[in-house]
Amino acid sequence: MQLYMTQALHRSRQQQPERIATICGERQQTYATFVERCAKLAGALQKLGMAKSDRVAMLAFNSDHYLEFYFGTWWGGGAVNPVNIRWSAAEIAYSLDDCGTRILIVDEQFKHHVPALRAQSKSLAVVIYAGAGELPEGMLSYEHLVASAEPVADAGCHGDDLAGVMYTGGTTGFPKGVMLSHENLASNALAWAAAGMTAPDANTLLIAPMFHIAAGVTMNATMLVGGTFVLRPVFNPQATLAAVQAHKITHLILVPTMIQLTVDHADAATTDLSSVRVLAYGGSVISEAVLKRAMQRFPNAGFYQVYGMTELAPIATVLSAEDHRRATADPKSTLLRAAGRAGLVSEIRVVSPDGHEISKGEVGEVTVRGPGVMLGYWNKPDATRAALQDGWMHTGDAGKMDADGYLYIVDRVKDMIVSGGENVYSAEVENALARHVAVAASAVIGIPDDKWGEAVHAVVVLKPSAQVTADELIAHCHTLIAGYKCPRSVEFRDSLPVTGAGKIQKTELRKPFWEGRSRSVN
Amino acid sequence: MQLYMTQALHRSRQQQPERIATICGERQQTYATFVERCAKLAGALQKLGMAKSDRVAMLAFNSDHYLEFYFGTWWGGGAVNPVNIRWSAAEIAYSLDDCGTRILIVDEQFKHHVPALRAQSKSLAVVIYAGAGELPEGMLSYEHLVASAEPVADAGCHGDDLAGVMYTGGTTGFPKGVMLSHENLASNALAWAAAGMTAPDANTLLIAPMFHIAAGVTMNATMLVGGTFVLRPVFNPQATLAAVQAHKITHLILVPTMIQLTVDHADAATTDLSSVRVLAYGGSVISEAVLKRAMQRFPNAGFYQVYGMTELAPIATVLSAEDHRRATADPKSTLLRAAGRAGLVSEIRVVSPDGHEISKGEVGEVTVRGPGVMLGYWNKPDATRAALQDGWMHTGDAGKMDADGYLYIVDRVKDMIVSGGENVYSAEVENALARHVAVAASAVIGIPDDKWGEAVHAVVVLKPSAQVTADELIAHCHTLIAGYKCPRSVEFRDSLPVTGAGKIQKTELRKPFWEGRSRSVN
Repeated sequence: MQLYMTQALHRSRQQQPERIATICGERQQTYATFVERCAKLAGALQKLGMAKSDRVAMLAFNSDHYLEFYFGTWWGGGAVNPVNIRWSAAEIAYSLDDCGTRILIVDEQFKHHVPALRAQSKSLAVVIYAGAGELPEGMLSYEHLVASAEPVADAGCHGDDLAGVMYTGGTTGFPKGVMLSHENLASNALAWAAAGMTAPDANTLLIAPMFHIAAGVTMNATMLVGGTFVLRPVFNPQATLAAVQAHKITHLILVPTMIQLTVDHADAATTDLSSVRVLAYGGSVISEAVLKRAMQRFPNAGFYQVYGMTELAPIATVLSAEDHRRATADPKSTLLRAAGRAGLVSEIRVVSPDGHEISKGEVGEVTVRGPGVMLGYWNKPDATRAALQDGWMHTGDAGKMDADGYLYIVDRVKDMIVSGGENVYSAEVENALARHVAVAASAVIGIPDDKWGEAVHAVVVLKPSAQVTADELIAHCHTLIAGYKCPRSVEFRDSLPVTGAGKIQKTELRKPFWEGRSRSVN
Repeated sequence: MQLYMTQALHRSRQQQPERIATICGERQQTYATFVERCAKLAGALQKLGMAKSDRVAMLAFNSDHYLEFYFGTWWGGGAVNPVNIRWSAAEIAYSLDDCGTRILIVDEQFKHHVPALRAQSKSLAVVIYAGAGELPEGMLSYEHLVASAEPVADAGCHGDDLAGVMYTGGTTGFPKGVMLSHENLASNALAWAAAGMTAPDANTLLIAPMFHIAAGVTMNATMLVGGTFVLRPVFNPQATLAAVQAHKITHLILVPTMIQLTVDHADAATTDLSSVRVLAYGGSVISEAVLKRAMQRFPNAGFYQVYGMTELAPIATVLSAEDHRRATADPKSTLLRAAGRAGLVSEIRVVSPDGHEISKGEVGEVTVRGPGVMLGYWNKPDATRAALQDGWMHTGDAGKMDADGYLYIVDRVKDMIVSGGENVYSAEVENALARHVAVAASAVIGIPDDKWGEAVHAVVVLKPSAQVTADELIAHCHTLIAGYKCPRSVEFRDSLPVTGAGKIQKTELRKPFWEGRSRSVN
């Protein structure tokens, strides 16, 4: 038998039945109750037709029910399909149909999507309402289902059994369903705990969205060690501060923007944040200024950056609390710009386009191997073959590694521009453009050039009523970065095409330039 | 791809090539060198015919070479067969032949066994000498092999691939080869680290014998996080004290007897032991008196008891440092007699003879499930079927669990006596006998009784020149334990039959009484 996500529930029921498992608004429940409810939800889902590995979706803000959804589905042998709460009904319907999800749980915040989902989705058959207030027509009551179901035995899924299909926004085309196994998720939870990022006495705050794997790994690690969960529906800085003080939160995960909003909130100075021992963040690096403010506000917190992706369940690298301390102690340190080093179930290689590991210090594609690497993309064998080669996940990120194994992400591989044999990282050019007062946003892409192969082209959105010429912007860049990196052409637009998750769709921008030509990566 | 034992080597080579990996007497080497040597040893073993999952044995005291043997064999795709250093040549030859081991590495301490092994073993073909001094005739030089071999690529074994065949002494019949996978060993290493029992800055002392899984899991967890190993050939208290002080040892594992010898050694009072942060022990519970002395001597150490067995790779339960602190703070606490609670990759059930989980507080057989449970016994399908039922390892230990999930081991199941419907634990009766001044040793067994089913029978060895009658001993027991637990008959002998590992062979003692009859367990 290999790793399985339900094992921790058996342990907590046996070792700490009276410990508080979840605190959600006015509700709280012990581990004995929580595990019983998961076993009953599992029974209810099986009665509704959930067989082994069948997908069950949830579309909701964070809550104790969301936690039950994850572990109840696993207890019953199913696979979770947690839905991105920022998506439109059309995107949700696409993802439900893509992996054949029949059962959906919604809360009051998202019940308004249900008519459109019913109209647009072919696979959706059962909607369960886990919200407050009156039961909407045509839906089953979550509470009634759980209350009336018989608890069933743990279905015993483990190892490579499917535990979830989690959709990545993707900046290119349709979202892809990432198939994650029990081994993928459980090995990451162990790595999280082994890195000291959770503890048995944890009071963990889940306020970052629970549909996402970043909150997911925090959740799985906390469950592994049997901590207490404090669940808050949706992020806002004031609620974060209040929850930390009220519940003596010891561990939480946020993205850097959330950290900034929280520490800069007016309440921060008067809130007791001394209980926090671990503040993890992911999604991007943190600015030194924000980190320093955060370190003052959270005086006892170790800061951990996690770089990863859904396809890795999700850890690739960890920048440890010790790394953060060293970086802030040494003004010359560049460590805060690093993504960290390979985590405890990860192996990292930076490779050339032909797949060979390249020297430290050179830029190449970041690839990752280990028990966290996904089973593949749901129903997309070509995408799976492109991403997984000999067990190595090709992240699509361009990065370089220093002598001590710290990884620095420089760009998305496909956004890297090769001009006259030199690599130009679009992110670096965009950073230069961003320092001009007139620039609101920009996207830098490579366009075909007969002489250079590719030429650097900038698509720029100006601030309202700001004015600047292309030549002025190019000259501005020349004051900041090497000549070959500067845009050769600039185009002004009112807006940039973005995905539902807010990422710029550079593929769309490149398309008209490359019509009828081939680019090595698209 | 699932868990694999070589992953940590890739990480350490990438992240800390210049860190000291091993310190062994005058020798020390960096991680860059250590990994290179493992890759070369792997190449040498492959040249000698080691194919995937082929067993390679080592018979030696602890050393850096022993560490290379483990990780070099795994790197090359083989499976380790570490030999019990207390065994006779006949026992070793049996185990080599049982699992078809062709290649054996020996050091100077055990080279004297080689002629007998060559004579008695059919499978042994190649002997490699990893000792000091002149190369014995007919053996290959370990150093020459490693120096002259080409490093090979990691063979990529993982998950259920065979990582080792480790022989259990066994108190009944021939030793059994426990087949352990990469998943078994790596999940235990993660659980060890996640329980806080190792750390990236660890200086780990390996002085308990490395052929045994207890040192093995400490080794694997230290490698996982990339700590430094200090290797000492064989346990003695003075060497332990000296190594701790000289190398600022932070983590080590011993058995309670070793702890007692160490803290009671004359040098203990004048040795600086303040560097030790984790002192793990296994094999038996610790007496409160010894623990208190050890806590004084190791002022900064957290104590961890691990209960387990080779078949679990090896963790079943852990009694944490926090448990030890609580137990010593509360004079009424019985926690020090507990084996601990299910570890982070373990699930525990105490079951009745028909396999059903029984209530907390009741005695039954301890069973364990999780990714640590062995693949099975080598070439012993009947023994495997008896031990593994629906993924649950039947430990053969009788135990009970308290309300908080703490497990107390009361006896071996097969040594438990059922007399008049009451369970009698032989260990309890033996403890009562041991408190009589005349008794040197005893073994209590169940013998057939027409009225009671089984009757309690004691086999007693007296101290030199001590005298006592059977009736006096029985009367003594009545002053200490309930009447139905007291021996009904006592037999005096000069010695008790023991295994190579020093365990009393109760099966041998029972045999004459049960000739022609059947006992439910033997």
